[in-house]
Amino acid sequence: MTTINMNADMGESFGHYTLGNDEAIMRIIKSASIACGFHAGDPTVMATAVRLAKANGVSIGAHPGFNDLWGFGRRPIVTNPRDLEYMIAYQIGALQGIASGVGERVTHVKPHGALNNMAHVDEEVAAAIARGIKSVDRDIIFVANACSKMVDAGRKLGLRVAEEAYVDRTYDDSGQMTSRRQGDAMIKDPGTAARQVLSFIEEGALISKSGKRIKTRLHTFCTHGDEPTGVAVATAVRKALEEHGVRVAPLTEMEF
Amino acid sequence: MTTINMNADMGESFGHYTLGNDEAIMRIIKSASIACGFHAGDPTVMATAVRLAKANGVSIGAHPGFNDLWGFGRRPIVTNPRDLEYMIAYQIGALQGIASGVGERVTHVKPHGALNNMAHVDEEVAAAIARGIKSVDRDIIFVANACSKMVDAGRKLGLRVAEEAYVDRTYDDSGQMTSRRQGDAMIKDPGTAARQVLSFIEEGALISKSGKRIKTRLHTFCTHGDEPTGVAVATAVRKALEEHGVRVAPLTEMEF
Amino acid sequence: MTTINMNADMGESFGHYTLGNDEAIMRIIKSASIACGFHAGDPTVMATAVRLAKANGVSIGAHPGFNDLWGFGRRPIVTNPRDLEYMIAYQIGALQGIASGVGERVTHVKPHGALNNMAHVDEEVAAAIARGIKSVDRDIIFVANACSKMVDAGRKLGLRVAEEAYVDRTYDDSGQMTSRRQGDAMIKDPGTAARQVLSFIEEGALISKSGKRIKTRLHTFCTHGDEPTGVAVATAVRKALEEHGVRVAPLTEMEF
Amino acid sequence: MTTINMNADMGESFGHYTLGNDEAIMRIIKSASIACGFHAGDPTVMATAVRLAKANGVSIGAHPGFNDLWGFGRRPIVTNPRDLEYMIAYQIGALQGIASGVGERVTHVKPHGALNNMAHVDEEVAAAIARGIKSVDRDIIFVANACSKMVDAGRKLGLRVAEEAYVDRTYDDSGQMTSRRQGDAMIKDPGTAARQVLSFIEEGALISKSGKRIKTRLHTFCTHGDEPTGVAVATAVRKALEEHGVRVAPLTEMEF
Repeated sequence: MTTINMNADMGESFGHYTLGNDEAIMRIIKSASIACGFHAGDPTVMATAVRLAKANGVSIGAHPGFNDLWGFGRRPIVTNPRDLEYMIAYQIGALQGIASGVGERVTHVKPHGALNNMAHVDEEVAAAIARGIKSVDRDIIFVANACSKMVDAGRKLGLRVAEEAYVDRTYDDSGQMTSRRQGDAMIKDPGTAARQVLSFIEEGALISKSGKRIKTRLHTFCTHGDEPTGVAVATAVRKALEEHGVRVAPLTEMEF
Repeated sequence: MTTINMNADMGESFGHYTLGNDEAIMRIIKSASIACGFHAGDPTVMATAVRLAKANGVSIGAHPGFNDLWGFGRRPIVTNPRDLEYMIAYQIGALQGIASGVGERVTHVKPHGALNNMAHVDEEVAAAIARGIKSVDRDIIFVANACSKMVDAGRKLGLRVAEEAYVDRTYDDSGQMTSRRQGDAMIKDPGTAARQVLSFIEEGALISKSGKRIKTRLHTFCTHGDEPTGVAVATAVRKALEEHGVRVAPLTEMEF
Repeated sequence: MTTINMNADMGESFGHYTLGNDEAIMRIIKSASIACGFHAGDPTVMATAVRLAKANGVSIGAHPGFNDLWGFGRRPIVTNPRDLEYMIAYQIGALQGIASGVGERVTHVKPHGALNNMAHVDEEVAAAIARGIKSVDRDIIFVANACSKMVDAGRKLGLRVAEEAYVDRTYDDSGQMTSRRQGDAMIKDPGTAARQVLSFIEEGALISKSGKRIKTRLHTFCTHGDEPTGVAVATAVRKALEEHGVRVAPLTEMEF
Repeated sequence: MTTINMNADMGESFGHYTLGNDEAIMRIIKSASIACGFHAGDPTVMATAVRLAKANGVSIGAHPGFNDLWGFGRRPIVTNPRDLEYMIAYQIGALQGIASGVGERVTHVKPHGALNNMAHVDEEVAAAIARGIKSVDRDIIFVANACSKMVDAGRKLGLRVAEEAYVDRTYDDSGQMTSRRQGDAMIKDPGTAARQVLSFIEEGALISKSGKRIKTRLHTFCTHGDEPTGVAVATAVRKALEEHGVRVAPLTEMEF
């Protein structure tokens, strides 16, 4: 029986500002990547997200990003690898601190936004993130874009790497997501999203818009809670997976 | 043989800004309270401080403060207890994340600045800090102003509490430090500071400016690295302690 | 014919975070107090708010607050008067910079949140705000809680002061708003709010919950755009004013 | 008689953190570019710098940078042009607000750090900065690296542009400063710096390390107050200019 993970970014509110649809999405996914106060999230928001994950049997991970609340972590910031490594360790630790009080453990890390995009293609950035993760806890699972530099960087350091695709994004022939600047970047139709997920799993590959197969084992599919169509898409994917006999499990129950 | 701890605040630089005299002070003290990025410090500064502590055989603690870099954590910010508790847990965890990579453990927590002052007299604030510490790790030592609400709050939760006095501050009859706004708040003469420390230890009491004895067992003396006279004062105190047969040890080797 | 102003806080979004109901409220009010990037708002949000005000014939003012995005400027921060004065001047200037590009002028200032509450009762804080305003432009109107220390501080410096009451808040016998911690702080019923406004104007007084009259001339009524009932309450007040022959005008058309 | 300006970055302290050598440098230069609270500086630091400039007969300008205190504005942050434009207007306005209280006017703008470097080569960034300046006050002088995209962008909008070279930096054949990563980026010897400045003025050109002349009229030379050799270098340049009959004047007394 095939096992796959579904994950989403959670805890992206901040102080007086509310964002996302954490309660609805938490019922669909099995692993939550929680913002750590740099691009979004604050200590109280983090605690709320951890508690919600626990109540839903969802494993938790850190979702570190650039220290850029204004840009929501989506502005590329050229940062030296040493600062990056410690910035990652800091954010993971901060979430561990919050999670301890809830009786939960941080079991994965997934970089956010521009940091994730930069690490997709930049070996130095990818390696700094991997070092940051390993320095805190070598048992943490590195959730990395499939076919990215992060996959190599994580495995080189002996980390378990979960290769990730998105339920609602299209891919180009290089294995990268289509840029959000292009009209066909997002899949908003639940049925189309579900079919893409199933085809990726069946073929063991990312399939680009042009039909190119980029072979790789996928461990986890990311859903976007903050898209208007997010809950509908995630629900359809979850249902399709179960109807096709795919078990949806926390990352902590996956094999790598 | 009497054992006493000497501690200091460390890692208060930030990015391009350098503050304090960490290298000199680290050779004199036995426990370092490291800023955690809210009122001072950043991930890289924290890593540097942890490494320096390790090289000097100095135990490390978190020095959490208000999220107020502009005010250096010295502006009182009225914060609800729930946010305070998570704010403490966040900062402890962040330092743990950084310390892991250096192979060090966070073994104490000491609140900074205005937060420390508020917790001295305010039960709710003191209790929130104690809960934040305990939620992360119940083995962490709570370094608390002698005779403060923090001492009670920590012990009530079953935490080990290290009662602290300052080597270079005078005290009033209530057991609080004289306000920095008054001219006689600071002791700048090394000999005077050393004599005060010895008398506090010998008498098992804080001794106020007016001569009042406030009985309490003191575990640790704090030195100020950023004062111009800080290194001279700390050196004199350390020397006086050793000449009088007092062992100066990390907090982790103390009994509570 | 009586002339009165209606104002509201605007531009409280930040980066990726959206807050408030600026478009709907801007059609009802005549003066907008725009957040300046310290407790809320950012340069782009500010420009959007100024443009929206211009399109609606609404005069604009600065809404300076503490530099505390996490607390949305609602946490009291004890700040020395010198820093306060410059903090006010900085924020007013920042909005002027943005407004220039839209061809608008900053014609009033109203402090936000905890800063406003502190200045209500604290002469030093009130005076620092008044100095900050005057230092930038002595023609700016100081919008101050009726019967507060701000009214005195502003007039003492020769500023024009607009005394303000809230359409949806109840008052105690001291002329202060009932604390939000109490159940009867907010008026959510549009009709009740409209009747309170009319009675305040007719009697030339704040009227407390207990019926006490605190005589003062009121120039402006503040509405809360971010309350769920905000638009309905503001609409009802505006309508009632016009039905009773009260002209609703920008602060710039008022006499002081 | 040739007239030239000497400028320096000022007001780069922040809260409890002190940086630079403003008092010494202010006596040598004629125009000060004051940090505006995004990459450095705070309202109180800004007021102090403006006052110091006034006391020394030094004209003031805004020195806007990325909102990145951790990176001191030296980390490139990819920002959309609309946000950039408003970010510039905001910072200029903020300094105007502070300067009003001191009775001074903001008469130039010079971008800081990574923003300046990006705008040197990127037309969109340069144009956004120019628009930001013009939107606030079309009489403000745009201080731009000689031979940069900023020079073109400013002139295209009708701004007066002061072309700038550095007293202590070497240049490559493209007219860009040698990267700080290379060993020969900085000129630390006062005599060498003074000779370079004189030769640039005499030849009406930047002269690269290889001896290439890049013809352009230079209006201003920037000195670095925070370099250990900064004061000595600036002093030598100022003396050499005067000995060679070059008048050193505020930007406001220059012709463009």
